Amino acid sequence: MAYIVDLRSDTVTKPTESMKHAMVNSALGDDVYKEDPTVNALESKVANLLGKQAALFVPSGTMANLIAIMVHCNKRGSEAIVGNCSHIYKYEQGGAAHVAGVLLSTIQNKPDGTFDLKELESRIRGTDIHEPITSLVAIENTHNYCGGKVLPLEWIDNLSELCKKHSIPLHMDGARLLNASTYLELPPDRIVKGCDSVSLCFSKSLSAPVGSALVGSYHFIQQARRVRKMLGGGMRQAGVLAAACAVALDEVAPALALDHRRAKVMAEVIHGLFLKSFSVDVASQHTNMVLVRIAERSPLSSDQVLQRLAQVSLAETQGDCKTTNDEGVIVKAIGFNEKTIRITLHREIQDEDLWLAIMKITYVFKELDAAHPIKS
Amino acid sequence: MAYIVDLRSDTVTKPTESMKHAMVNSALGDDVYKEDPTVNALESKVANLLGKQAALFVPSGTMANLIAIMVHCNKRGSEAIVGNCSHIYKYEQGGAAHVAGVLLSTIQNKPDGTFDLKELESRIRGTDIHEPITSLVAIENTHNYCGGKVLPLEWIDNLSELCKKHSIPLHMDGARLLNASTYLELPPDRIVKGCDSVSLCFSKSLSAPVGSALVGSYHFIQQARRVRKMLGGGMRQAGVLAAACAVALDEVAPALALDHRRAKVMAEVIHGLFLKSFSVDVASQHTNMVLVRIAERSPLSSDQVLQRLAQVSLAETQGDCKTTNDEGVIVKAIGFNEKTIRITLHREIQDEDLWLAIMKITYVFKELDAAHPIKS
Amino acid sequence: MAYIVDLRSDTVTKPTESMKHAMVNSALGDDVYKEDPTVNALESKVANLLGKQAALFVPSGTMANLIAIMVHCNKRGSEAIVGNCSHIYKYEQGGAAHVAGVLLSTIQNKPDGTFDLKELESRIRGTDIHEPITSLVAIENTHNYCGGKVLPLEWIDNLSELCKKHSIPLHMDGARLLNASTYLELPPDRIVKGCDSVSLCFSKSLSAPVGSALVGSYHFIQQARRVRKMLGGGMRQAGVLAAACAVALDEVAPALALDHRRAKVMAEVIHGLFLKSFSVDVASQHTNMVLVRIAERSPLSSDQVLQRLAQVSLAETQGDCKTTNDEGVIVKAIGFNEKTIRITLHREIQDEDLWLAIMKITYVFKELDAAHPIKS
Amino acid sequence: MAYIVDLRSDTVTKPTESMKHAMVNSALGDDVYKEDPTVNALESKVANLLGKQAALFVPSGTMANLIAIMVHCNKRGSEAIVGNCSHIYKYEQGGAAHVAGVLLSTIQNKPDGTFDLKELESRIRGTDIHEPITSLVAIENTHNYCGGKVLPLEWIDNLSELCKKHSIPLHMDGARLLNASTYLELPPDRIVKGCDSVSLCFSKSLSAPVGSALVGSYHFIQQARRVRKMLGGGMRQAGVLAAACAVALDEVAPALALDHRRAKVMAEVIHGLFLKSFSVDVASQHTNMVLVRIAERSPLSSDQVLQRLAQVSLAETQGDCKTTNDEGVIVKAIGFNEKTIRITLHREIQDEDLWLAIMKITYVFKELDAAHPIKS
Repeated sequence: MAYIVDLRSDTVTKPTESMKHAMVNSALGDDVYKEDPTVNALESKVANLLGKQAALFVPSGTMANLIAIMVHCNKRGSEAIVGNCSHIYKYEQGGAAHVAGVLLSTIQNKPDGTFDLKELESRIRGTDIHEPITSLVAIENTHNYCGGKVLPLEWIDNLSELCKKHSIPLHMDGARLLNASTYLELPPDRIVKGCDSVSLCFSKSLSAPVGSALVGSYHFIQQARRVRKMLGGGMRQAGVLAAACAVALDEVAPALALDHRRAKVMAEVIHGLFLKSFSVDVASQHTNMVLVRIAERSPLSSDQVLQRLAQVSLAETQGDCKTTNDEGVIVKAIGFNEKTIRITLHREIQDEDLWLAIMKITYVFKELDAAHPIKS
Repeated sequence: MAYIVDLRSDTVTKPTESMKHAMVNSALGDDVYKEDPTVNALESKVANLLGKQAALFVPSGTMANLIAIMVHCNKRGSEAIVGNCSHIYKYEQGGAAHVAGVLLSTIQNKPDGTFDLKELESRIRGTDIHEPITSLVAIENTHNYCGGKVLPLEWIDNLSELCKKHSIPLHMDGARLLNASTYLELPPDRIVKGCDSVSLCFSKSLSAPVGSALVGSYHFIQQARRVRKMLGGGMRQAGVLAAACAVALDEVAPALALDHRRAKVMAEVIHGLFLKSFSVDVASQHTNMVLVRIAERSPLSSDQVLQRLAQVSLAETQGDCKTTNDEGVIVKAIGFNEKTIRITLHREIQDEDLWLAIMKITYVFKELDAAHPIKS
Repeated sequence: MAYIVDLRSDTVTKPTESMKHAMVNSALGDDVYKEDPTVNALESKVANLLGKQAALFVPSGTMANLIAIMVHCNKRGSEAIVGNCSHIYKYEQGGAAHVAGVLLSTIQNKPDGTFDLKELESRIRGTDIHEPITSLVAIENTHNYCGGKVLPLEWIDNLSELCKKHSIPLHMDGARLLNASTYLELPPDRIVKGCDSVSLCFSKSLSAPVGSALVGSYHFIQQARRVRKMLGGGMRQAGVLAAACAVALDEVAPALALDHRRAKVMAEVIHGLFLKSFSVDVASQHTNMVLVRIAERSPLSSDQVLQRLAQVSLAETQGDCKTTNDEGVIVKAIGFNEKTIRITLHREIQDEDLWLAIMKITYVFKELDAAHPIKS
Repeated sequence: MAYIVDLRSDTVTKPTESMKHAMVNSALGDDVYKEDPTVNALESKVANLLGKQAALFVPSGTMANLIAIMVHCNKRGSEAIVGNCSHIYKYEQGGAAHVAGVLLSTIQNKPDGTFDLKELESRIRGTDIHEPITSLVAIENTHNYCGGKVLPLEWIDNLSELCKKHSIPLHMDGARLLNASTYLELPPDRIVKGCDSVSLCFSKSLSAPVGSALVGSYHFIQQARRVRKMLGGGMRQAGVLAAACAVALDEVAPALALDHRRAKVMAEVIHGLFLKSFSVDVASQHTNMVLVRIAERSPLSSDQVLQRLAQVSLAETQGDCKTTNDEGVIVKAIGFNEKTIRITLHREIQDEDLWLAIMKITYVFKELDAAHPIKS
């Protein structure tokens, strides 16, 4: 038996006690008839929080983004420009193309999750009949694949201006927008001021079991509601989920800074090991994710490292790498690619788990660094 | 203030106390990683109940049907044959065409929810390059628009044989399959024996807040899982919903017969009024829905009748059409078309509410029948 | 060796000598740059002929209809209402659904190619979120599957009014519109006055090798041009085809009445045989097609009859069923279904061929009628 | 009046006299019934030329590519990897996404039209449910946007091997494949040996008025035929076009080397001007296109240069920049982007036109270079 610290994703978080309380004690109704008071209240709350006219509760962040694309890209032959590291492009199975019939044009993301605005402008298509109609730009904040990076506010504002100039709507995949808000110490409505629509996920760092919101203008949400129905995202007494999401906003969101602080500690410890095989960019550690880069010339792969972290050697439990109950420690994380591991802090990882994870990671990284020296 | 009896739909049912208990006391995990034990258990339970290899939990019946269509119709230029009164054709916004790119070919439903099998066979397309590829036949049981009719078992079996002969899969929209099972006094797996896939809804008569299941072969469900993700139907700690669905199967399903009995009473009372304007086909009253037909030559429309049912006249409260608290009674129902009203019984309508509804309906129908005589 | 009379379709017609002359002597340019003067001239000519603002030359009638659907149905979740015997529904492989994402809702065609306008009106969907958006009604004139029937002008006008009342555009699949114009002795622009868009085919009765036109408003055609490009229907020196189409309008169209007269003769002869197995509705014989109905209780199928027409028996050539060169005669036609054969007259069938075909058909029908008596 | 030399594209070429002769003297039939002998012969000829089992004649290169994508990408959630400068991505209006529902994933093209094979391999998706299914790789040869570059044979072979290793089909957009064949002095079947499907266009350098072919295996072409019908690409007496295409292969293809030689001359002359504002990469001048790069720091834009080339100044005709008839000369070309002009040689540009164009271009480039000095 080993003690498991699950750092794969903030999606693994389970509902809090007060979420559970809310789930069974909130007023319910049939949301397809717009009669679920708890859903209605959550939608108002989120719209207000993000400074938009209206909101729609949906089962997932993927559906929120898909609906946004379907509503904004309402002309045949539409194109949406998204980062080549964006969740929409990498992890939503190409639904924009298959379900929505929209060409996803990728623009190269910089390490900070932004992209070059000049390049963007050059990518906006004209009216030539050979070309699709550029109908949407979408950004991601915080940027998952870039390691939870918070987009610079000024960049978003500049991008927004550029989009307005070309009359192209701007969508933000704000699945982890409140992490950005926490980092920037700015209210979320300020961050998304220049965005026409925003998706926000309650079941990641915010720990609600299920649910995302899509926000925008009244007209946008009215159309989004139709699209949600078509996709099968209309739910009946969805208040059972919305109740937990409201609690997430009230009680979990204020604590996100703790996840960030813990991630910072994790990053600094790994950095402080000064190993040749593993590095972390401490300076650009923004939120609750830590990206560990395996040196290009190291023979190690992400999978190897992840497998080792999921094992307990005899030496570990015979030595000091164990819990106070003498259990070995397993750390779960995920590999972004051959040479990058993502470690994600979240509400269920309190300080004790943090230190166990750090102990284990330190142990394993040192072991691997010694056993698999960099090729020269 | 008036007392409301809501007979619009069995979707308005709220979770029971023991569902709520299960929702907050069941083990949870991240279902996208297939780690939610409560979802996994529900999927096994439903697959078993329906005698199929596997099941998938989804947010809605519309999504369950859409996924089934997307998986079965896997060739470009596919066609699915469905009844012209089916939910898939009438009430799912054409998602089969828009999202799945599948031609819905409607075949005329008979009043009992079936269709002519000879006509079906003549509708199956050959290999001519001008024609789509007939890739699916879908039926609905119980049949909503036909008034909760239960499809005759022999007809389903014959249809299934015909489909097998032509190598065309058969899907059952079994949103209310357990009502059919209750009516036939047959286990659900027997009813769907000849079907390749079945959807089942927990949030209608079964009273769970949210959720449907799609069942079929391992291979089918594996593909369905991918499609669910693409549509944005992948949920994280979906166990909070699945827990209630499991309770629905265990505790609510056995009581469906009560809804049927109450619907029968309602039907017989309306029939017994012997009014020229309103009729009910008592003989073919199967499950929890009562279809009230307004006479073709009556000047009345469904909307008029529904509006009157939603009002309380002075005479009602001054007379006997009121609750024991002297409140007037409002009955909510829905109009299927200009001349058809659907009344739906469900778990929240116990005998007291039934009698209040009957009292009000009797009052209003008599009043309208007298005031708006049939044109001769 | 046998002499073949090909009555399968008017699509088999080959270009006339003067078409060929035009094809190689017309000015050409790159039509993707809108620089082909012959295409431009044809588009003007057709727009003018049909009384609309603009026209677009496309490779086929199927593409013309598909583009019309794609332009008119420009909202997600759109529905087009078409006859259940329409070419769009039966013979275009479901492209409206697969390519355009549009739900085709079929309404029952009467034998004359029309449908009930009251039923149509009842089928127009409202704003309920469960329902698709009714975005188009399409009719077919002449109506192929109904045997080349010409739609009554008054019916079209009434339908058009009804569509305008509901702000739903009306498209006419006028592949054989000029046959209707010939039959009604009315200019085509009068017939399509109430239609928002019309497709017209040059390669059917009009005998051009390739090409159709789509007509409508400037704005409609502008969008259609984009869609044509997307589908791959943009052609370069398309003037080589358009030249023949212009000749078709000038020189072949005026002769369509001859095809109609010959079809009438064919119909009357078959009718005059007074056979139990085969019948033709002479009274409703409108244009260049003859539908031969095989009696429901006859053991014969269309395929059997077609196969027999394609064979020459020894008795035929030993008797009188042969050409003046003592060759047997083969007649090719097509089967619409188990009990219906379509015979199509066209420019290449002059009187001599007509009489050979009639001789052969008479011979075979009598033979089959005698050999396969009606079941009683 | 000015003399125009049209170097915009090789698509502007008009049919030759012998094409015209073939168009009106070839046997015709109804190709939808597969009865057009000229189309059938062309399809055999092309299949043979490219060493594949079968071919399909289609109206355009865009349709050929679209059909290839639709046939290869036959799973829901499919992705096709294409170069970010490919015609499929840049100039086909996103049809792959909108019509075919396929995600186009772009990989960065190098200046020679290839892309990095290691990067390609890293881009192939696994089986993760979040990701699309990588179902196709498509390349372009010669590569239009890269200036008519011929892909290195070895690179294609290596790519083909890599694709086979991953069981991913390889499509070549060979619109100008015969230019590549001419440049490499290799038969086209050798070049496309490792490709599963190839499109070839007859209406570009080959000068036929209309038409492309798609080639592949029997099974592939069988499916392609269905898709062509669905898109509306089925044409009747298409032999009128195919006849010209056959002549194009026999008579125009052998002369492509002349276009290449003339392009080389053009490139060398421009290079030899040694202007700061304009450059041509003579070393990598492969086929019939010349890309003129405007210096990054030049204030000039492509549009400005193109507009100047399309004007005749008084000085030109008063000086030497004129025809022997004292007409000014206009050169038409197209702009690929702000700083790149494409000049295309083709069959209609014989030596006389070449020299007039060179004279004009020299005149204008010198004038502009002097008038708009590079910013320092």
